[in-house]
Amino acid sequence: MPTNLHTKITQRQPGIILYGITPPKANNTPEKIAEIAALQVERIAPLNVDGLVLYDIQDEADRTDAARPFPFLATLDPLTYSRDYLAALDIPKINYRCVGKYSPEQFRADLSALGNGVSVFVGAASREQQVSLSVAQAYALRRETNPDLLVGGVAIPERHLVKNDEHIRVAHKVAEGCSFFVTQCVYNVEAAKNFLSDYYYACQASGTAMVPIIFTITPCGSVKTLEFMKWLGISIPKWLENDLIHSGDILAKSLDVCKRIFSELLQYANEKGIPVGCNVESVAIRKDEIEASLQLVRDVQAMFSRV
Amino acid sequence: MPTNLHTKITQRQPGIILYGITPPKANNTPEKIAEIAALQVERIAPLNVDGLVLYDIQDEADRTDAARPFPFLATLDPLTYSRDYLAALDIPKINYRCVGKYSPEQFRADLSALGNGVSVFVGAASREQQVSLSVAQAYALRRETNPDLLVGGVAIPERHLVKNDEHIRVAHKVAEGCSFFVTQCVYNVEAAKNFLSDYYYACQASGTAMVPIIFTITPCGSVKTLEFMKWLGISIPKWLENDLIHSGDILAKSLDVCKRIFSELLQYANEKGIPVGCNVESVAIRKDEIEASLQLVRDVQAMFSRV
Repeated sequence: MPTNLHTKITQRQPGIILYGITPPKANNTPEKIAEIAALQVERIAPLNVDGLVLYDIQDEADRTDAARPFPFLATLDPLTYSRDYLAALDIPKINYRCVGKYSPEQFRADLSALGNGVSVFVGAASREQQVSLSVAQAYALRRETNPDLLVGGVAIPERHLVKNDEHIRVAHKVAEGCSFFVTQCVYNVEAAKNFLSDYYYACQASGTAMVPIIFTITPCGSVKTLEFMKWLGISIPKWLENDLIHSGDILAKSLDVCKRIFSELLQYANEKGIPVGCNVESVAIRKDEIEASLQLVRDVQAMFSRV
Repeated sequence: MPTNLHTKITQRQPGIILYGITPPKANNTPEKIAEIAALQVERIAPLNVDGLVLYDIQDEADRTDAARPFPFLATLDPLTYSRDYLAALDIPKINYRCVGKYSPEQFRADLSALGNGVSVFVGAASREQQVSLSVAQAYALRRETNPDLLVGGVAIPERHLVKNDEHIRVAHKVAEGCSFFVTQCVYNVEAAKNFLSDYYYACQASGTAMVPIIFTITPCGSVKTLEFMKWLGISIPKWLENDLIHSGDILAKSLDVCKRIFSELLQYANEKGIPVGCNVESVAIRKDEIEASLQLVRDVQAMFSRV
């Protein structure tokens, strides 16, 4: 039986809501990982989201010369983590694959393991990165070996500010088999609207149905996290950075900002009938930041239900 | 007796509202100019604005290699126009001076003619432009010969996106005698908020009182006007440009957009106690565009009165 998530994606429905986490660090003991997983299952099960995003982390040091604010530590493979530790969580898992990390043989095996599930293929972090497999090759392998796998792509509104072609990249990926997109974390609403607008008018002009665009929002709990977001290439308007830094409570302020941003995007999309969804990303470890992300899910669900 | 405008500027009050027009083309007959003036007096008198902005037009062809969408035609000198034709309009005139057009002797005479009125000094449109007088020289002449003249500067939020120093330019001009700023027409709310935010936090850090920042908004009645705005260097977010072009009624859409933009800026400024004002610019000739600008004044006045 197809899950709700499958139906919503293939019927290009608005209102998909996801929760995104990073698997535990790979250097934990199996007992520690099981303990973390039990806590996550307990938190996420009552949320009633359409799916759980599991990120596949790659070191993005190739992308910039700036020093990384947090050290890079390898994390458990999302496929392994969801199979071995999250079986108790009865919602679809969206396993990310940084395809450049895998050989064609490995990737073929992963495609088989993903079955008729859902995945998002992520390309190289920079042109300089050496990859074993390109995204185009990954899409081709999926078409050849497992077309039942629903696959999504990554959309980066920030890139649209500079190159103005993110909607064309999206159209190309749809042609290659993508049926939805998850964005990089959005703190720049103008960039997101610019991308959405160009995608909308291009689809209008060509008479193409739009696929779900799932915007990622994530609370920011500290100035160091803010620096890390900027390091990752997330665009934060100057006024917002000022307000966050000067705020007495950066976490509360960022929650408020995330809600405002998604509300503005949702209003804009609803006026035009664009199917947008929301992915609340929780990559922090602090308890108050995790609580904030859970509250954000509930707030976004309330926004969707008001539509 | 000082006018309300003088009081609001010198006491750094929020809520200043101005209406901005361009004097008639210089090649009109005096009879025709008198006729235009009579119409303008009739329209503007009931508006109850704090002041009337009279632009001093310079050809900005030096600023860009792109073809000018509308031909450049010289307009009547704002000082001449307000003295000879607008005496019946009993509100303060804010005469713009493109200072680069004048010799020091001419400018000295203008300063005397401006008396204890209000002016805005405008610099060269580009570094390449040959000028007889720099803005710094103009400020110095005003300090020496007519310090009673209230003088404002031009703020360009778009420049802040690129150079990040518009708040420093503003602070420098305040030191030279500026007591308020009028922005270039704003269609990019992020740029405006970035500038306002940096100005706010810089003043907080230095313990300096903020002077009134008067944001200019102007309805756009056609795609050709939109092109002209872009030619003038006004930044229009891609999504907004798309919506305006595809709108069945670009004038109504732009009115809605102008209101949303100013409302967002006002809310942002009020939260922080920044004294912002509004200048509704009407540089179009079509009757529906003029009517739209008058309605915009009334709408902004309603926003101010709700605060």
